[in-house]
Amino acid sequence: MSQIHNEFKKEFQLERLILFSDAVFAIAITLLVIEIKIPELHDGPVSDKAILKELAHLIPKFIGFIVSFILIGLYWTIHHRLFGYVANFDKKLLGLNLLFLFFIVLMPFSTGLYGEYAGPQLFREQLKVPMTFYVLNVFFVGITNYFMWKHISNPEKQLIEPNANKEEMALARLRSWIVPTCFLLMLPVAYLFRVEAAVYVPFLIPISIRILSKRISKKKIKPASK
Amino acid sequence: MSQIHNEFKKEFQLERLILFSDAVFAIAITLLVIEIKIPELHDGPVSDKAILKELAHLIPKFIGFIVSFILIGLYWTIHHRLFGYVANFDKKLLGLNLLFLFFIVLMPFSTGLYGEYAGPQLFREQLKVPMTFYVLNVFFVGITNYFMWKHISNPEKQLIEPNANKEEMALARLRSWIVPTCFLLMLPVAYLFRVEAAVYVPFLIPISIRILSKRISKKKIKPASK
Amino acid sequence: MSQIHNEFKKEFQLERLILFSDAVFAIAITLLVIEIKIPELHDGPVSDKAILKELAHLIPKFIGFIVSFILIGLYWTIHHRLFGYVANFDKKLLGLNLLFLFFIVLMPFSTGLYGEYAGPQLFREQLKVPMTFYVLNVFFVGITNYFMWKHISNPEKQLIEPNANKEEMALARLRSWIVPTCFLLMLPVAYLFRVEAAVYVPFLIPISIRILSKRISKKKIKPASK
Amino acid sequence: MSQIHNEFKKEFQLERLILFSDAVFAIAITLLVIEIKIPELHDGPVSDKAILKELAHLIPKFIGFIVSFILIGLYWTIHHRLFGYVANFDKKLLGLNLLFLFFIVLMPFSTGLYGEYAGPQLFREQLKVPMTFYVLNVFFVGITNYFMWKHISNPEKQLIEPNANKEEMALARLRSWIVPTCFLLMLPVAYLFRVEAAVYVPFLIPISIRILSKRISKKKIKPASK
Repeated sequence: MSQIHNEFKKEFQLERLILFSDAVFAIAITLLVIEIKIPELHDGPVSDKAILKELAHLIPKFIGFIVSFILIGLYWTIHHRLFGYVANFDKKLLGLNLLFLFFIVLMPFSTGLYGEYAGPQLFREQLKVPMTFYVLNVFFVGITNYFMWKHISNPEKQLIEPNANKEEMALARLRSWIVPTCFLLMLPVAYLFRVEAAVYVPFLIPISIRILSKRISKKKIKPASK
Repeated sequence: MSQIHNEFKKEFQLERLILFSDAVFAIAITLLVIEIKIPELHDGPVSDKAILKELAHLIPKFIGFIVSFILIGLYWTIHHRLFGYVANFDKKLLGLNLLFLFFIVLMPFSTGLYGEYAGPQLFREQLKVPMTFYVLNVFFVGITNYFMWKHISNPEKQLIEPNANKEEMALARLRSWIVPTCFLLMLPVAYLFRVEAAVYVPFLIPISIRILSKRISKKKIKPASK
Repeated sequence: MSQIHNEFKKEFQLERLILFSDAVFAIAITLLVIEIKIPELHDGPVSDKAILKELAHLIPKFIGFIVSFILIGLYWTIHHRLFGYVANFDKKLLGLNLLFLFFIVLMPFSTGLYGEYAGPQLFREQLKVPMTFYVLNVFFVGITNYFMWKHISNPEKQLIEPNANKEEMALARLRSWIVPTCFLLMLPVAYLFRVEAAVYVPFLIPISIRILSKRISKKKIKPASK
Repeated sequence: MSQIHNEFKKEFQLERLILFSDAVFAIAITLLVIEIKIPELHDGPVSDKAILKELAHLIPKFIGFIVSFILIGLYWTIHHRLFGYVANFDKKLLGLNLLFLFFIVLMPFSTGLYGEYAGPQLFREQLKVPMTFYVLNVFFVGITNYFMWKHISNPEKQLIEPNANKEEMALARLRSWIVPTCFLLMLPVAYLFRVEAAVYVPFLIPISIRILSKRISKKKIKPASK
């Protein structure tokens, strides 16, 4: 593109990239609910009891919906923060962003698959396939997010605002490992130990974030107290 | 974030938060219609009479669609007004907004569930479960909306425009109780009395709004007439 | 709202109203395709012939998809033009816009219903119900659109740009009658005469637009030639 | 429209056209995943093996999803670039853009159709119909995109930024032939030779782009070295 044209249009182009991503996030987060089919009572009399029983069967799907809503919401927030630093884009950022959105778009499917087999049979049969699919989906969301942080942090590319806080960005880049790592940890726990235990692994996420934050704030206080 | 970066990007970030919410609203309001399945005549001859009969079965679903369309439209308008005051955002507002959107996203499901069992059996069997689910969904939409009003009104957080009309905001905060309260009132009426009666409770909403508005305007006239 | 706050935020608020409408349009136009289910061959061998036969059954649905795509696209263009004049909004415009969007959102359902019964049985059984539903949907889209034109044209409301071309707006208001009237005309033709004939009534639309445009341009030339 | 009004509002109108297109892209790209139904095990015991077997049946659908995601993502990027040059719009650009979006919206259906019949029977029965449908869809996306490039490049229409790089635009217009041509080539290969071979034709796309780019850069170096 000619230099002048470049300067003129790039800001709106970047905005468009961001708003397109937002729309994809918004649709993916709303489609989550579509995979929860409304229970229909085909046989037997209609009663509050029967409907409640059908709704109870949906509980694993609701849990999946809530977890994925939180995850997509979280990654939207992170995407929000990441592009808060970005002043410019190149082809690679465009590509990475599309790859990232690809895994976001896949989330309703993975969530539905997990929810479909997360009933009582999950523990009875020690089902690992739906969980593996879901975990890998979340892992790839997280890892492409990491590569986006890495790419924009590369000073040669000149993609960020000149006055962006590099320390904060480094912290965000570091933090972007937490979610994919914790989810990936579910797999050895499920395969080597028991599926029941794997379910608790994601609770490491808030704990890791807190530990990381404390370490950071300690470091920050030290130089200030000199 | 560095102070300078902060100032520079925050406005667009806020805009993005709002437009993301708009997209979620738009999708949720459009998905409402997806839950109304097009009637297919599998057995018997195809005739206008048969199609009309099938459409007649859909009337409760259409009523649910209309009511939920109005509610989501109303809450979009309120969200519109609320963010009309906001000049800044913090993590808590982001979180509250996502929680609010969670209950908005759930609306198509709740509406579909209510519509599914709102045929003649609703009154015959005095079904309370689908109504309870729907009512609680609307209640949580309303209550998270109240908490958003409360949070932005907190002067310590400095989230609003400096010249925002605080009186108006207080009125909006007060008014945000009307919808959830009136819907919640449906439950005692349905459980203690009859389901038929509960259906009329939401008509209290326009009445309450009118009463509140009159009280306010009286108050306003008084100090002016001193 | 306080006067100052008013001035400050109203422009972005109007933009938000427009972008929310755009999102609803975009979703409604995309959902049209969802009602066309992918043909599955459950019995008999899979062959190109069998798939072609199944696709041939979908032709009425495709026609419905194309017609509704054109209509929603047309009304998006008109909405685009209408809000090109608007500089301000009030509660009534907000309400009219939501009502207008309600009928836009209903379009995928009406299209699907029409397409479902637009196979060979449409003419054999002289089915009028799906057509009536579809026609009324389009009629209400058109008529709420007319009321939006009427409302913004009201000089007392001061909703339009001060330098808006009033003549053009009057023409647009007049033109907004063409689509709903032509579609409504399908009903007497179908009920009093034959369903086959009604299908050709919408071809009056481009003809009427051309006639109206010619009349207008004649009028315009006259005063200029004085 | 009056001249003054024109100048004033046209920029936002153009932005609206772009954002509406973005929303349609975002929904179409997200709907791709909806056509992949979550496997349900109706008969036989639930086990990891059974779920894996069902997921394996979905592999052709996943490949279709990935290919179409790349194509829609690519065309979004191209649309992004195209409107980076546009400073103005006319009715024809509006119409071409809607036609272009029509074929984008059709992609989830074509992808689903292709994926439905892309199992082992694809090669056994030498199915050509789903491929033809898909190829024609991609072809029409590409060809309407070409006509958009052609229309905006027309200097009489004055649709582009005055300082736009015309050489780059000519290159983009030339390049817009590659995708539709390569996809169209699949048809003679499939009909005259074998369906298996046709699948590899799209790999010509990256090769053609590289060749074209090299030729261009050679040309560019020549005049510079004079």
